[in-house]
Amino acid sequence: MEDYTINPVGVVHSPLTDLADCPLQENEGGPEVTLEIFDRFIDGFANIEAGDRLILFTWLHKAERDVLKCHARNQRDSEEVGVFSTRSPDRPNPIGMHVVGVVDKLNDRQIKVYPLEVLDGTPVIDIKPIL
Amino acid sequence: MEDYTINPVGVVHSPLTDLADCPLQENEGGPEVTLEIFDRFIDGFANIEAGDRLILFTWLHKAERDVLKCHARNQRDSEEVGVFSTRSPDRPNPIGMHVVGVVDKLNDRQIKVYPLEVLDGTPVIDIKPIL
Repeated sequence: MEDYTINPVGVVHSPLTDLADCPLQENEGGPEVTLEIFDRFIDGFANIEAGDRLILFTWLHKAERDVLKCHARNQRDSEEVGVFSTRSPDRPNPIGMHVVGVVDKLNDRQIKVYPLEVLDGTPVIDIKPIL
Repeated sequence: MEDYTINPVGVVHSPLTDLADCPLQENEGGPEVTLEIFDRFIDGFANIEAGDRLILFTWLHKAERDVLKCHARNQRDSEEVGVFSTRSPDRPNPIGMHVVGVVDKLNDRQIKVYPLEVLDGTPVIDIKPIL
């Protein structure tokens, strides 16, 4: 039996608390936010430093997961397209992918990153370096 | 209660059947493979066509999920680093991210993509367009 359960490794602390504040796609003028890593994962976080650029993966926990068709960005009048041809947060597995810069490392479990346009409380599920 | 369960939307059919065939990082000379979308998700797949370039997300189901430190690529003699500073498949949430080209659309649920270096049977969990 495969394990398909996501274990959040951290959480985003953001001034954005309302879905209406969020755009239709990721990172369109997002604010600076604090990313907090949970205690049991801080060893994995050890070598992340101010100045790094990262690919941050989030779990868009307020998204609708039963959406398969939607309007393409800025094309509300046209036909709907398959959701895998869009960056809509509403999709079967609501994985957010965000390129961010590390503005500051506050301590061994908290960094400030910019820009990030997700709701306060959004789970962080992975971090990868940009190669 | 949040739902943190990944629902695979498809599967990779690949000639790679042994972890020893796979490199330490994604897409280093990977083969052409067939990506099959499961029936209930094919509406989401409708507008993907030959010639598209996609970001494919997989669930690296053979990965070790309790790894937090590892050796950086090509630096086996040096100190271990935090896994979030690496692209190691062994990580708390083994999400694979792969930039691929669509070589051919075989039918409404199958495409050939290139290159992709994951094991045969690897679950596909999301597909996003390159913007």
